[in-house]
Formats: sequence, C-alpha cells, structure tokens
Amino acid sequence: MRKDLILEPWHIKMRSNDWVDDYAETIFFLGNGRIGCRGYIPFEPENRPIQQGLFLAGTFGEIKPRITDFVNLPTPVFDRILINNKPGRLTSEIVRDLDLEHSILTFEFTLNDTIQIKAERFFSSDDVRFMIQRFTIKAPSNVSITIDTGINEESCNCPVPDDQVKENTETINLSKRISLTHHNDSLIAKYLITGTHLKITEQLTIHTNDFEIKHTNEALMHLDAIMNPAASNDITTYSYEKFTQINSSRDINLSDSTPDVISFQNFYNKHLDFWKEKWDICDIDSNIIVKEFENSAKTITALRYNIFQLINNCSRLDPTVSIGARGLTHTRYKGCYFWDTDIFMLPFYLATDKEAAKNLCMYRINNLDAARDYAKKLNLSGARFPWMTSFDGSEQCETWDIGCSEIHITADVVYAINNYIQKYNDQDFYINHATELYIETARYWLSRYTYDSTGNTANLLFCKGPDEYCGITTNNLFTNVMVQHNLRLAIKAASDLKQDNTKTYNRLGISDSEIKAWSRLEKDIPWPRDPESGHLTTDDTFHLLEKVDISKLKPDDSASYHTTCFDRLQRYKVVKQADVILLMTRLPELFSKKERLTAWNDFEPLCLHDSTLSFASHALFAVQNGITDKAMYYFSKALFLDIYDVMNNTGKEGLHMAGMGEIWNAAYFMGLLKLKP
Amino acid sequence: MRKDLILEPWHIKMRSNDWVDDYAETIFFLGNGRIGCRGYIPFEPENRPIQQGLFLAGTFGEIKPRITDFVNLPTPVFDRILINNKPGRLTSEIVRDLDLEHSILTFEFTLNDTIQIKAERFFSSDDVRFMIQRFTIKAPSNVSITIDTGINEESCNCPVPDDQVKENTETINLSKRISLTHHNDSLIAKYLITGTHLKITEQLTIHTNDFEIKHTNEALMHLDAIMNPAASNDITTYSYEKFTQINSSRDINLSDSTPDVISFQNFYNKHLDFWKEKWDICDIDSNIIVKEFENSAKTITALRYNIFQLINNCSRLDPTVSIGARGLTHTRYKGCYFWDTDIFMLPFYLATDKEAAKNLCMYRINNLDAARDYAKKLNLSGARFPWMTSFDGSEQCETWDIGCSEIHITADVVYAINNYIQKYNDQDFYINHATELYIETARYWLSRYTYDSTGNTANLLFCKGPDEYCGITTNNLFTNVMVQHNLRLAIKAASDLKQDNTKTYNRLGISDSEIKAWSRLEKDIPWPRDPESGHLTTDDTFHLLEKVDISKLKPDDSASYHTTCFDRLQRYKVVKQADVILLMTRLPELFSKKERLTAWNDFEPLCLHDSTLSFASHALFAVQNGITDKAMYYFSKALFLDIYDVMNNTGKEGLHMAGMGEIWNAAYFMGLLKLKP
Repeated sequence: MRKDLILEPWHIKMRSNDWVDDYAETIFFLGNGRIGCRGYIPFEPENRPIQQGLFLAGTFGEIKPRITDFVNLPTPVFDRILINNKPGRLTSEIVRDLDLEHSILTFEFTLNDTIQIKAERFFSSDDVRFMIQRFTIKAPSNVSITIDTGINEESCNCPVPDDQVKENTETINLSKRISLTHHNDSLIAKYLITGTHLKITEQLTIHTNDFEIKHTNEALMHLDAIMNPAASNDITTYSYEKFTQINSSRDINLSDSTPDVISFQNFYNKHLDFWKEKWDICDIDSNIIVKEFENSAKTITALRYNIFQLINNCSRLDPTVSIGARGLTHTRYKGCYFWDTDIFMLPFYLATDKEAAKNLCMYRINNLDAARDYAKKLNLSGARFPWMTSFDGSEQCETWDIGCSEIHITADVVYAINNYIQKYNDQDFYINHATELYIETARYWLSRYTYDSTGNTANLLFCKGPDEYCGITTNNLFTNVMVQHNLRLAIKAASDLKQDNTKTYNRLGISDSEIKAWSRLEKDIPWPRDPESGHLTTDDTFHLLEKVDISKLKPDDSASYHTTCFDRLQRYKVVKQADVILLMTRLPELFSKKERLTAWNDFEPLCLHDSTLSFASHALFAVQNGITDKAMYYFSKALFLDIYDVMNNTGKEGLHMAGMGEIWNAAYFMGLLKLKP
Repeated sequence: MRKDLILEPWHIKMRSNDWVDDYAETIFFLGNGRIGCRGYIPFEPENRPIQQGLFLAGTFGEIKPRITDFVNLPTPVFDRILINNKPGRLTSEIVRDLDLEHSILTFEFTLNDTIQIKAERFFSSDDVRFMIQRFTIKAPSNVSITIDTGINEESCNCPVPDDQVKENTETINLSKRISLTHHNDSLIAKYLITGTHLKITEQLTIHTNDFEIKHTNEALMHLDAIMNPAASNDITTYSYEKFTQINSSRDINLSDSTPDVISFQNFYNKHLDFWKEKWDICDIDSNIIVKEFENSAKTITALRYNIFQLINNCSRLDPTVSIGARGLTHTRYKGCYFWDTDIFMLPFYLATDKEAAKNLCMYRINNLDAARDYAKKLNLSGARFPWMTSFDGSEQCETWDIGCSEIHITADVVYAINNYIQKYNDQDFYINHATELYIETARYWLSRYTYDSTGNTANLLFCKGPDEYCGITTNNLFTNVMVQHNLRLAIKAASDLKQDNTKTYNRLGISDSEIKAWSRLEKDIPWPRDPESGHLTTDDTFHLLEKVDISKLKPDDSASYHTTCFDRLQRYKVVKQADVILLMTRLPELFSKKERLTAWNDFEPLCLHDSTLSFASHALFAVQNGITDKAMYYFSKALFLDIYDVMNNTGKEGLHMAGMGEIWNAAYFMGLLKLKP
C-alpha cells in the first residue's frame, strides 16, 4: 500500500527524495496511445535502462523463436546535468506533477541548493509521432552548466515469464542501431528490432538559445550553457526544448508531413485542443460524486486518472494493434493483448470514441487468418484466437494450462465485435468483416466441443474459465454461454450473408448442414449446475472442491498465489476472480433476477479477488443488480487499486488497464460520468 | 525402420560406409553402468561433440536455475589418424561389432586401401572407474602414421526440451577444465561442472611400444609411429592401449586403490569373469525360443541385447543414482530418472542382482527429504516424489500438465520398494528405511485427495494417469489403486513401527487418528467405471471422449503426436499407452479374471502405443492372462523397437530402458529365460 500521492481535482502529485521509485514511474506514466513512457526523471543520476520504458504500440521483438517481448526502445528521455563539470547534489524534494486536464508531466527539484530545475514533457495527442520535452534551469550566472542529452541506447528488456511466480534477471537488447546522422540541431538514429525486423527511426531535435550544441559519435549531444560573463552573481535561466519524432516501418494512418512550426508552444496548443474535446465527452459528473461519496475529492481525481490513462494507452488510429494488459506502461505479460481489451476496455471506447472502438475490433478482424492458422495447428476447424498475442496474431502464451485451455477468448472477441456493431449499427463492418469472423469462430467451436455418447450433450472438455483457479475442467459456464452467443451470431450472419452478400457466402463455403450443426450445438451445450442446490455453477468440477476458510487463505489484499501454489489453490472451493458473476454482467438478459442474486450469494463469498479485474466486476454486478452497499465497497476497492498500490504490483507490473476499463464500466452504470447510460 | 544390423547369437554387427550414424551410435552404446559412451568411432574425421556422448551416472550440470542436464563429458574416445601428415580416405566398409558375451566393442576399417585399423573398447565391469581402449594399425612400413589422441573437450550439451514437439539447437558447455597435468605416458585433467560444482577427474594413460608420445599444452598427446627404416615394403603393425580412469567428487562405494597391472589383457580378464557370472544368471533359454519363435535366431540376439543393455546402464553399486529414461545412452529428458526405473526396470534387477535392486530403492530413500520439501512447496503434507529428477531429488519436469499432474510416481516408488522387501525379506531395510517412506507418502496422499460434500468419496482431482492423452482428469484408476496399495502399506508400517521401532514411531509423530484417516481414505477412493457398461475405466472423463478411427489417426508406428497435437489427442477416446492394462499387470490379484479380460477387450483396441513402454506392457498382460497370440505379437513388436528403430527415435533419443525392462518382464513370464518365474 502506498498513500503518498497528493490528489487534486486535476492533478496527481508526489513530493519525495527519491530519484527512483518504480511505483511513481508507473503512476506518472504518460503517453498518447501510440507512444508512451514510464514516469522516470530524465536527470536521474543512475543508469537503469530496464525500467526506463519508452514503448511504441505494436513494436515487439523476438526473445526466443516465435515468442516476442514488448520492446523497451532507446529513449530520448535522457538528460545528464553537470554543474562545473560535476554531478549535482539533490537539495530539495522532487516534485512530480501529472496534469490530467492537459496531459503534461512536470518534475521540479533543486541541485546544490541554488540550481532549480524544471522538466516538462508531453506526448502530442494531436500529432502522435511526437514527444516533446522542455527543460528550464535557473542557476547562478557564475556556474557552468553542461548537459549530456540525446538517446539512451542502453534500454533493454528483462522478459518477465508468463508464470506469475517465476522471476528473471537476464536482460536482452532488442534494438540494434543501424544508422546515425547528426545534422545542425538534430540527430536521426535508426534501429532494427530483433526477429521481427521492424525499423524504428528516432529523430531528435534540440531548440535552444541558451546552449551551444556539440555533436558526438554516438546518439548523444553535449549542451554547453552560454554563460553571461558580465553578471556573475545573478541568476541566469537556461532552457532547451527537445522534440522527438518516432516512426516505425509498421506505421499506419499516420501523417508524413513535417509540422509547420516545431515549437513546444505550437505542439502544446494543438494538444490542448484534443484534450479539451476529450474531457468534454469523457469527464466525470462531480456533483453526483460529491453527493454520494464520503471521500469525494479523491474519488474525483482517481476516476479522472482512470479515464485519462484509458485515453493515453489506446493507439486510437491504428487498426493493427490492440491494448496490452498493462497498456504502454510496462512489459509485463510481454506487452501482449488479451481478452482484457475485448471484454473490459472496449466499453469505454465504444461509449467515447467510435474510431478507437472500431480500430480495436479491426485488430481482431486483421488477425482472422492467424486465428485460422492457430485452429489448424490445433487440428481444429475455423478460427481460434490466441490467449495472448502481439504483432502477428500468433499465440504468445507459454504456459500450457492457460494457453491451451482458457479458450473463452474466441467467444469474447465475437462478443466485443457484436457490441461495436450494435452500438453504431455499422452494417458495412458487419457484412464485410464481422460475419466472416462469426462464421469461422462457430466452425472452431463445433470442432472443439465433444458430443457424449447420448448425442444430446456437447461438452467442453479440458477448459479453463476466467476463474483460473478452477484447474482444467469441463463445461465452464462463462465459456459455454459466451459460445452459445457466438453461435447465435454466426447462424444469423450466415442467413444475412446468404441474403446480402452471396459472394462471401459462397466463398466461405457455408452449407445448410453446418448451420444446422451450429444450431444443434447451441442447444446441446449444457449449463453446469451444482448437483445439490441446482444452482448455476462455475463448471462441472466446482462442486467437488474442498471448502476452505478464506480469511486464512488470504489474510490481506495481496494475491494468494504468493503464499499458496496454483496447484493447491485449484482444489479449494474458491474463485480467483468474477466468473459466473462476470458472465451475468455481460449477458444479464439471459438470466432471471433470481438466478443473478443466487449466483451473487453463492460466489461473492468464495471470491479471492486475486485478479485485478475482480473488484470492479463485482462493483459492476452489484450496481446492475441493485446491491448498492456492495457496489460502493467494490468500486472504491477497485478505483484505488493502482493509485494506492493495493496489490503491491503497480510498480513492478504497470497499470492494470482492464481493471481501469471495468471501473469505468461500473462508474458508467453508477451514473458517475457526464455520459449517462 | 532400420534393418541393417547383423544379428548373430552373441554379436550385433553392422557394415556401412558411414562414419556417422546416430542410430548406430545408440545401438553400439557400451558402458559399465557407471560410465557409458555412445557407439561413435574415435577416428571419425568430423567433429560432432554433441552426439559423442560420454556419460557418468549422476553427473548433472545446471542449464538454468535449478534445472539440470545430463553432462556430456570431455571424452577420451578421440583419436585422429594422419597418414603421411594427411587424413586418410576410407576405402572399405566400417565393421562395427558389439560382443554381447564379453561386453566389448570393435570397429574395423581400411584407409587408403592398405592401412587396416582396428579399435577395441570396453568399460571394465570389474573396476568401474576404467574405460579401456586398444588400437591396432597395420600399415606399409614406409608410411608415416601419426595420431592425435587425448581428451576431446569440445563435448557439450544441446538440452532437449521436455515438450516432445519442441526442438533446440543451442548448445551449452557444462564442463570447465580447472587443471591439467602431463606426466610421462599420462595426462590428468580436472573439470568443474556448471551449477552443481561437481569435480570430474579424467586420468588418461597411453601404453605403447610402437609410438613416441609427445605432450601438448592442451589435454592432447601426439603419437608418432616409430618407423622401421629397414623393411620399407613390408607391413608393420603399430598398437597402443589407452586407459582412462574417471573419478568424480560424488563417488561412492568405489575403490581408490591403483590397479596392480595396467594392461588391456589384465583388465579384460577380470571383466570377463564378471560377464561370465552375469550371463550364468541372466541368459535366455534358447531351447524354448527356438521351439516357440519363427524368427528365433533374431529373437535370441535381441533378447540378449536387451538384457545386456539393462546390465550396462545400471550403476549397481551406487545408492545415490537411479537409471535415466535413456540410461547412459543419451541426454533425452535431461537424463532424468522417472517411474521408468521403479515400475519397469526394477523387476530385472530384483530377479538378477540384489545389490543393484537395493541401491535403486535406496536412491528413493536417500531422496525422501527432497520429497518432503516438494510436498511442502505444493502446500501439502508428507513426501511427494518428483515426476523427473536428477542429482538432488528436486522436480526437473518443466511442463505443468505432466509435472504437476502425473502424480502416480509417489505410489510407484512405494510399490517398487515393497517388491524389493517382499523378494528378499529385507527386514532391516523395511524397518529402518521403507516404513518412514510409506508413512510420509501416505500423509501426502491424505492431503492430496479431496473429500466431496457427502464425506464418503475422496476424489483425486486434476490428475493425469500413465495414459498421458487423458487430459487433466479426475480419479485415474491406475493412480487410485496404486495409492490404495501405498496406504495399506503405510497402515501396516505404522503398526510394525509401533511394535518394533517405537523410537522412529515417535520421531515421526504418528497418531492413531491419522492411521484411521488413511484407512478411511483407502476405502473412500473410488474406482472409476464407465456409466453405461459399468466396466472399470481409465478415469472419470474417459467416457466423455470422442470416438475416433485409430487407423486414420495413426497409420503407422510413429507416434501420433507428430501429426496430431496433444491438445486434440486428449479429446479422442484413445489411450497413449497401457494404463488400466498396466495396473492389472502390477496388481493382478486385485482384479478378477473377468475384470482383466474385460479391460483388455475395452482398452487394447483403443491403445495408440505412442509410448515405447506400451507394446511390452501389452505383451506382459497378454501372457499373464493367457492371450497367447497377442502376447507373441506385442512381444515381437516391443523386442525389436530399438533394434529396428521402429519409432524412428532410437538414434535421436537413445535406448528405451523402461521398454527393455518391460520386455524382460514379459520374457520372464513367457519362460524365455534361464531364470523361471
């Protein structure tokens, strides 16, 4: 738990004496969806290239054959100050200030008692190629100031194993510089990414009247302050602006024109236009929050922060990337895309940014062929989406039990796309993109289910539900119901294609008999019920599990897998996170009010909330079903998860984007936003 | 399939033009149980350090934190011949000859039409520290012969992933030389093994009257033939003998005296004494084989080969090692010890070598503390043996589904130890070693089973049986019945300890209530039955699987996982290898004849035999249950598995030791051996 942030209505601040603090670096992450950077201080005296993450959406490099990591790029957030040729001594607190309204981050501190330093940075949300920094140094005029600036090329990856209890200390450099040019006030460095052969260009330009720029043989420049020999006891202000344009060989939908004026102010003004418009749509309803929450001030900031980071982690114009589990804030889970986007984050973009939502759906459409290949590799038909994926749509999950068995992802993708189509009635998208995906996924499901010898029941064997503590089981309810939803959409899609797009209908070789088979499968998929109570339950083995005293298994909020191994947890009658409960928030219309409340009574007491997705889903369920006190309780738990580092992993792992999406969902249904349901 | 071996009653030979042939190198493996070497030719002109395996039992090195590989040691099987300072040209077939009666391997070939070369080697079975080689070269007297000999230090490992479909090409050197001394006719090199810090000493001595020995700065010597200038057109015979003594910092029960006479003949004579005695006990009954088998000549050789390699892969004097799945013949499965020893190989040693059998059981006893640690790590009680293990008794299996779920190993260990005690009535071993292991494993099982809400059934959740295509299932019959056997032995052990060794009884803190709990558990473990037929079945999910046409799934003898992935196979109604069938060979008395024949009728047609263990177990079952035609069929399939490379992996993976053990089992029950049941 951390309680040292200062929460103001539109600012998150921290005063501390530490240059280095991985929690602060996660919290003060800033980006524009395409590029993002952890909130570290460019002047910090240590060299910690691993944590100093600069990330570009979709930029993955190979760490072993066919397995990628999210590349920690060479970073222009790198400035070393020398005072009279020596490193300075920190003589004040460091003030970190993240301005949520204008999306700009500022650091201020004093060196050697008299030298005041201010560093500002933002990532243009208007021209997403650019990162802009400005540095202001106030120093006694007789002091010599020198800056080593440029690109820190020691950035590297320290791939985190999928297995949540394994650790790694080996680092790997994934960006190899292939060219370097210095020219007047700028340098251009080009990098080749290991394995994926992406090319990244970083063009860095320094504007300053106060320093003399000296080039080097590396991707560095020296800035020597131009001293004023006349006024030796006065304070002189030195400043420089640093513009970094980042391009990639995989860029799409990006401007390639040079901006008219390269100046901090010019970029900033356009950036503010974007944010003004964003907040007009996305802001909270503070009146309601003040009325309903005891700690309304903190709630207001936390909810704004949440929305702010959802905006800043989505590359809204790019249909070839999705949003990693930790956005652009960390390499945890190798930066991969999960169901997190489709199920938990998409609702925010659906409600606030049609283009972003459409592109997130297009990402899945663009990977349909990879999903076809994956199904074939598994000796199955149709298309099967991977549990974890990166740049090419291949499976990136390396643990067998999850990667092979947590297969609801394919139905989740369909659920997400259907929500986009329903929301915007995008018939073009439906007929030309979605229908094919619905049909191919239905084909996958038909080949993945196993009819028993009666021929009347189709079981989902050897699967794992959202409750990852369920072992490998049969008929996870969440999965089965989402699959039925997928099948119904495919059946309708086939009929719509037959009518509106016979070309595609024929190309896909759809037959009446397979539509009949989907229809039969949809009816023959069982809903698991507890054999004693008859209530809907997680899966076919849940009733066999051992009852356990949860207060002993999990005395505080940190995940129980830190003290009890997965193998043991799977035999306890607990759920890791919302599972049946989650299903009922997504397809509530399929369940009676009584069924929903029964499920809540059955499963809410058994939930360990060992996933950061869990609190918010419980809040959402509670608000949807009128369980007001629990809604408030879970909402507050979820809202401050990263801000207070509740699970002790915000620093080590980055921001929990899906949790943020689900909090937005709950807030939306609670009426806490300008935008009302 | 390979059919190019020449099988003679006591010899296996091959004539070929290839220096390099990984199948031949496996088949012509030779060792003395403690040391072993693949059958490669010391003179072969290529440098292929990976496949040229010299292995020392128990010598493992770390390839990643806490994971070891079986070290491919620097090897003295290394002699490069130069003729007039140039490499020779092979002008004859290479004749490989493995003499099973005397355990010696010979290569013969001709270079440059006129130079005949013979290399002999054996590993002393009398003094297991020694490997002995002799080289004889017949050349025209006017030809200059030079030999580079010594130790090839480029030997390295290419760790094979546990996952049977993954490949690796990266090599790793695990032996670092830490000292080297040359002295007269010998050199001594010491090596440090990565991670485990074992120290290995190789002392190499050359005896020759025909060569001048020159030392080098490396672990090499040059031999220059002493030419006879008088007789330039005659043929001169040059020979040298090469003795290598290998010691390790983990040696146990080994002589440390210097042999009286270091000579090929002296070592060989004592070696022959050992083998004469061995074959007196272990040989086949050729009269019966001639009577019963059509291809009796080949059967005789193959069965002798089988017995020969069982002897040559067991370090019979060492209670701190077991036998790897591929013995000393390959690093496949990282050289680890599996249930293969306890269930499939032990019967051979039990019948023929009490000391070897006892030491194999002691290996498990010596790792009881490691098994306790493993249980604790899994949040369970007692002691749990690892699926794969090497020098320190820790789990070496890296795939979750197998390592975590294929837990019958613990009951298999108990089964093996009990067989040793029953056979030799070793009461000292029983009271002082076995009882504690029985009790600790019973404690493990009590914590591993899960009582259902009725309180009358204890289910084994999330397990995997010998049939590794069963997915992750509930109540594997093999495991459940072996566990009951384990519990019964523990209950008796507790009672015996109470009476005969109260000190241990008290030290173990045995309580009446826990004995009662084991007793209750033993009764409450269910035997899975097919819900339609009521027949005993593999597990609780087997009846849900999909029927499949096996002839399509597996058109030939190569394993179906090469063409159909594990994920798909687990949903087919097939078994990978004997499972229910295997159980009934191990504890036949628990099943009626009718139950056994029913199981055969149910499961024999569903078996893919994708494990090399499977054919022989089917043979054994068939002979035990009087299904004579099938016994002969499966016995022949199994017997020639490696000799004909039936599964196309003998070269790539080494000899299938457990298969060899099970073939011996079947042969024993078929009465094909001197030793009768």
